[in-house]
Amino acid sequence: MTKQLSIAILGASGYTGAELIRLLRHHPSVAIKALTADSKAGQPIAAIYPHLVGLGLPDLVKHESVDWSGIDAVFCCLPHGTTQEIVAKLPAHLKVVDLSADFRLRDVASYAQWYGHAHSAVALQAEAVYGLVEQYRADIKKARLVACPGCYPTSILLPLLPLLKAGAIDANAIIADSKSGITGAGRAAKEANLFTELNEGINAYGIGNHRHTPEIEQELSVAAGAHVEITFTPHLMPMNRGILSTLYVTGKSAAEIKAILEKTYKDEPFVTVLPGDSLPSTRQVRGSNRCVMNVFAGRK
Amino acid sequence: MTKQLSIAILGASGYTGAELIRLLRHHPSVAIKALTADSKAGQPIAAIYPHLVGLGLPDLVKHESVDWSGIDAVFCCLPHGTTQEIVAKLPAHLKVVDLSADFRLRDVASYAQWYGHAHSAVALQAEAVYGLVEQYRADIKKARLVACPGCYPTSILLPLLPLLKAGAIDANAIIADSKSGITGAGRAAKEANLFTELNEGINAYGIGNHRHTPEIEQELSVAAGAHVEITFTPHLMPMNRGILSTLYVTGKSAAEIKAILEKTYKDEPFVTVLPGDSLPSTRQVRGSNRCVMNVFAGRK
Amino acid sequence: MTKQLSIAILGASGYTGAELIRLLRHHPSVAIKALTADSKAGQPIAAIYPHLVGLGLPDLVKHESVDWSGIDAVFCCLPHGTTQEIVAKLPAHLKVVDLSADFRLRDVASYAQWYGHAHSAVALQAEAVYGLVEQYRADIKKARLVACPGCYPTSILLPLLPLLKAGAIDANAIIADSKSGITGAGRAAKEANLFTELNEGINAYGIGNHRHTPEIEQELSVAAGAHVEITFTPHLMPMNRGILSTLYVTGKSAAEIKAILEKTYKDEPFVTVLPGDSLPSTRQVRGSNRCVMNVFAGRK
Amino acid sequence: MTKQLSIAILGASGYTGAELIRLLRHHPSVAIKALTADSKAGQPIAAIYPHLVGLGLPDLVKHESVDWSGIDAVFCCLPHGTTQEIVAKLPAHLKVVDLSADFRLRDVASYAQWYGHAHSAVALQAEAVYGLVEQYRADIKKARLVACPGCYPTSILLPLLPLLKAGAIDANAIIADSKSGITGAGRAAKEANLFTELNEGINAYGIGNHRHTPEIEQELSVAAGAHVEITFTPHLMPMNRGILSTLYVTGKSAAEIKAILEKTYKDEPFVTVLPGDSLPSTRQVRGSNRCVMNVFAGRK
Repeated sequence: MTKQLSIAILGASGYTGAELIRLLRHHPSVAIKALTADSKAGQPIAAIYPHLVGLGLPDLVKHESVDWSGIDAVFCCLPHGTTQEIVAKLPAHLKVVDLSADFRLRDVASYAQWYGHAHSAVALQAEAVYGLVEQYRADIKKARLVACPGCYPTSILLPLLPLLKAGAIDANAIIADSKSGITGAGRAAKEANLFTELNEGINAYGIGNHRHTPEIEQELSVAAGAHVEITFTPHLMPMNRGILSTLYVTGKSAAEIKAILEKTYKDEPFVTVLPGDSLPSTRQVRGSNRCVMNVFAGRK
Repeated sequence: MTKQLSIAILGASGYTGAELIRLLRHHPSVAIKALTADSKAGQPIAAIYPHLVGLGLPDLVKHESVDWSGIDAVFCCLPHGTTQEIVAKLPAHLKVVDLSADFRLRDVASYAQWYGHAHSAVALQAEAVYGLVEQYRADIKKARLVACPGCYPTSILLPLLPLLKAGAIDANAIIADSKSGITGAGRAAKEANLFTELNEGINAYGIGNHRHTPEIEQELSVAAGAHVEITFTPHLMPMNRGILSTLYVTGKSAAEIKAILEKTYKDEPFVTVLPGDSLPSTRQVRGSNRCVMNVFAGRK
Repeated sequence: MTKQLSIAILGASGYTGAELIRLLRHHPSVAIKALTADSKAGQPIAAIYPHLVGLGLPDLVKHESVDWSGIDAVFCCLPHGTTQEIVAKLPAHLKVVDLSADFRLRDVASYAQWYGHAHSAVALQAEAVYGLVEQYRADIKKARLVACPGCYPTSILLPLLPLLKAGAIDANAIIADSKSGITGAGRAAKEANLFTELNEGINAYGIGNHRHTPEIEQELSVAAGAHVEITFTPHLMPMNRGILSTLYVTGKSAAEIKAILEKTYKDEPFVTVLPGDSLPSTRQVRGSNRCVMNVFAGRK
Repeated sequence: MTKQLSIAILGASGYTGAELIRLLRHHPSVAIKALTADSKAGQPIAAIYPHLVGLGLPDLVKHESVDWSGIDAVFCCLPHGTTQEIVAKLPAHLKVVDLSADFRLRDVASYAQWYGHAHSAVALQAEAVYGLVEQYRADIKKARLVACPGCYPTSILLPLLPLLKAGAIDANAIIADSKSGITGAGRAAKEANLFTELNEGINAYGIGNHRHTPEIEQELSVAAGAHVEITFTPHLMPMNRGILSTLYVTGKSAAEIKAILEKTYKDEPFVTVLPGDSLPSTRQVRGSNRCVMNVFAGRK
């Protein structure tokens, strides 16, 4: 077994933090050394998430109480907008994986436009690597700061990037119709996220102005070698987990497109191109870090 | 057709108000003349509940803007604790049906104990009638103020009151295990009521101290002619509507108990004792004002 | 009040029949005189659907036991493929509303291709009227046989027909991404329709070959005055009721398109174009015969 | 690391088999060598359960194709009633863990009464150990045949066995009101298990005659040292996983009862007595092999 990495999770009391604990808890190369949550410091994590009881996890502490000298890497699960200043002040020896949106957009002007305030760590942004492993594996290995991709972008970029690189689809006619479970909205107490407002129904939201749009277009443009704009419609539906993105493209045949994807992902452990006419379902990946996909002709 | 009653709904922007509109909208004897909602005055009700669009309903207004002279009856859907003072100031010619808990407990000392503050309309309380129609029909017809029963109490009292009156069950060994949908918790934005906190699970809550306990015991005691205490465990489960109360009693045989209930409810339009071994399900009454029940021996 | 129509429902024990009973039961112009269900003849309908208990409905009978002389109109809720022969043998004085797919396709060759067997009532097909009320109201009034539109087609045709008629959108670039609740799959006991197979997930199905495709294209072609093909992707998601169709079109501006829809539907009781940026949700129409829609620019 | 056990799973294509694969797949001491499923032999398991794709699992084979010489232990996930004969014919060197109900009842007469046919492996039954680990750990270690407890019995026995052994509760006044998710009903295509029949509702079933009753009473009687009968009411509710059993007992105080449970389970990795007034929820254990519990006074 390789040496274990000692890690800290910042903002461990939100859904992102709790899920990260669940995934890393059994990882043979990781030792969880510190969990921070300013407003809930002093409590065991199991007081907030009882499913984490009895796992030998450290109690929640305030950010300033962490002894960084024993930490190798930090996972940052803080809200959007608060992360830039915190990451900028972390000791230089730490590797940082940020799960917020704060370092995903390379263009700080675009960040300011979509998030409504100036970027406050421009120098750090310049060295951040977009953390889509299947795309930027080599860069991620060398990076000090990794910006984890958003949920919708991941579901849209994994299928489309290889196709744009190969020139197999028309970059100017992409439609992404995405259906998401509710945990993506986080744990904030808002009327729109009540059980009674979301159960037994579906609706689109953020049509034409969802903040994941510039992130998706940034990476599609890199792959296409030209500025790409997409039509992106996110929907909220009554399930906890998972995203299904139904992507409409024009270009090469379904068989040719599928062959490109199969070749790209044949050795990737977390991305699977399904065989034959097998239909992708979010049930197949729920609760995991996996992605399944398939390609179909629009008409038979 | 009899003359239509002109009615107003106070606090029409909560779930109770919206549901009342849905039920009364098609009632041939009711004309909805005013809807109040102080914080949302000026808006059409369909701006808050789009399913009520296009029904010719009056816009939401502030309480003080209502012209009471044209109103015959008021349905009060305001939060617990705020209702007593408002009802006390309504013009005397109005019939009032209060859907909050403010007038359900005849004993104002019990009210103060369970709700944490003194009753502020003691004289009104003295004339309030507990609005369980199958039990108090004659009184309700003459009443000026009707206190609508709570959701859990309705599901527990309809089966048990006739049995206690008939001396068919032991009044001191009643257990009520109730399972409720989520709309009963209202529309307040609380973390505990988020979709992600309630979906795919069940838990008990308020064990031994739910505020519906004194209301249930008040009516059971009237029927038994003696002080009755029960064991009551409410549960929250992932569905919008409906309550299933599984009631455990000792006393006469299941057949005798069923015969009493069948006799009691044979002419009641909204209460049905199911035939044979037919299993009651909340799906059979969801979205209606009906109650179905059946009786089973604990062991066959 | 106008004279009541005496009606019979054929195949009343399926979900379609049960829902029709629920809707017609309170209709002031309809009297339900007969309910047929061959395999369950002799039972009360409430034995199969307990929510219909106590409504004074006739018991289920075999088809051949119905006295047609007292019936004015028939609603036919039988499975696809069995309906043509049965309707062909009904007495000539009956008006027939068929809720199956058996009379929706005007082209019997297309029917044979998509449904896998020859049409067995070609003459009747010639006189059938496609029952989209907002489109064919005058014809429906005079028709002897009305073919009720499918669920997906209704959700797609109501918005698109007026736009194609007005030449406001490109007829050759329509994408319909539809999300459906589960009751549409009917009550047949299939593994794919189990709770455990459908809960907490979403998947597309029937991509490029769903049987509603020719029905949708038939009506779009009539409106466009030319042959239209669409891209149609249906999805199954975990809710009982409702369909959301997200339609992607190119052509006139969102504002112009919305103006056409508003003008078309301003006096229709069951179709509503939502005001402003209000987002359509299936929750707004669940359990009703209503349709709400809105128009959004793909990019802001 | 200890030597890995080579195991086979019989009946791997049902829900029980799939879940066992999920749990054992990452177990460091287990190597999955064979998966049987007669009707689906020849297929990869991922063709039936796509979430198991890419894990290097053996393909499904017929029972008779397994080379038992390389297998140390067998997990048997076959339907009730078919298992006895199959297990009786397995080679003697195999350890067998049976997940069906076929070996849970020590009294073969009771088995015949509740399951409707004679036990066909009486000698094997005599050596079977009831596999509730917290209760029979030492016996299980030595056993050749382990009968896995049923789902409801596990949720009821873990809290009650220590209390009956300690004489802390009245053995003749136990009520178990259990609420279960739907996967427990298995993958058979039955109308009662359709999404549309189970979503948005709850109902009791098997009242007084559920087949888990004799299994529960068998173990309670052992612990009490006398014949025990209980009142057991199972309910089906709309979630995939988990059981909540609300248990009503009389006897010592809640604090004394809690102390007994805390002492019993303080070193058990999979059973947790929650601290303070923390409410058990099935969400805390969903998808795991854990059990959480707490004790509350019926009245405060």
